[in-house]
Amino acid sequence: MKLYDFSMAPNPRRVRIFLAEKGIEVETEQVDIPSGENIAPAFRAINPRALLPTLVLDDGTVIDESVAICRYFEELHPEPPLMGTDAKSKAVIESAQRHMEWDGLMPVADAFRNGNPAFADRAVSGTEGVPVIADLVDRGKSLAGRFYDSLNSTLGESEYVAGDSFSIADITAFCVVDFAKWVQIRAGDEHPHLQRWYAAVKARPSSGA
Amino acid sequence: MKLYDFSMAPNPRRVRIFLAEKGIEVETEQVDIPSGENIAPAFRAINPRALLPTLVLDDGTVIDESVAICRYFEELHPEPPLMGTDAKSKAVIESAQRHMEWDGLMPVADAFRNGNPAFADRAVSGTEGVPVIADLVDRGKSLAGRFYDSLNSTLGESEYVAGDSFSIADITAFCVVDFAKWVQIRAGDEHPHLQRWYAAVKARPSSGA
Repeated sequence: MKLYDFSMAPNPRRVRIFLAEKGIEVETEQVDIPSGENIAPAFRAINPRALLPTLVLDDGTVIDESVAICRYFEELHPEPPLMGTDAKSKAVIESAQRHMEWDGLMPVADAFRNGNPAFADRAVSGTEGVPVIADLVDRGKSLAGRFYDSLNSTLGESEYVAGDSFSIADITAFCVVDFAKWVQIRAGDEHPHLQRWYAAVKARPSSGA
Repeated sequence: MKLYDFSMAPNPRRVRIFLAEKGIEVETEQVDIPSGENIAPAFRAINPRALLPTLVLDDGTVIDESVAICRYFEELHPEPPLMGTDAKSKAVIESAQRHMEWDGLMPVADAFRNGNPAFADRAVSGTEGVPVIADLVDRGKSLAGRFYDSLNSTLGESEYVAGDSFSIADITAFCVVDFAKWVQIRAGDEHPHLQRWYAAVKARPSSGA
């Protein structure tokens, strides 16, 4: 199998950290997003949606979407569990993971892509001919600020994003926090729980993946 | 347990159809979104994100996000399987399901909320003080058009959205297609495979849930 990757982008990083936590090694190939390598015909022939990460299995099956790729590896290599172990924990972690995506990753991505000249005509990942909407920069930053406040509150009540155990929800949140620095959004003194958690996740060997 | 629901909204409908396919009955309570009942203090005390559907378990655990709620029931009631049965089918279905959300549901929701006076100051679900961005109506409609073309192609190659079996990906796609009618987006004669599939899903008893 092969994992199509781009080292600087937040979504491929989610999968790399997940694999590092599991101790799994997969062959990777870099596809450069800013220069448009992902939307060129060669990569669209592999994944018409032109998104990274993309996993291609040995039988040719193409799986994109970070969480779906993680699911594949979670099922094959359940230890250590990162997506829950029973109905309730699986649902709680999936819910929290999606909070990190919808409330955090999406507004930060909106602020990043709609304010970046490299994506002037491809404001939505994988597309061409979609012009930026400047108002989404401010909306994204505003929503990201709310997200930080909410995440800080969550982390004031539990050690990790989805409870007592490190999970895929922490991986998504950690990648959002680092991605947000690209648009000058940072946790501050008013987010002590978030700061405590960030330092703990950063200290894990997987954070460098 | 109790499922907080709103009968007219697309996301709660996804869970209702999922439950109907499984033959599961759950106590429900309606929360009216257009009038703002979901963002009022009484419901925020249940789910601070103010989103529907929200499932509250007997032990008080709160699970929102349609797919996370579906995951809970899939784990407890595996038959009929709607989210896959092994690593590959689970990953393929999760990937396809997310295509339906990101490429279909999100642009249609953007077009709907940013063009609807009832949501003038709450353009993002569960929020207040987030003004609409009119340009998102056209962007959403444009992306939804691409989505229909892509979904039609997918359904020209397989009976269902994620292969040979009906799955949660079909449920999301079916709810997107009905939701899109609210913003005058409809499949046309150029989408024969989509039309064939829609009629088949509509004919299932669960479609009325």
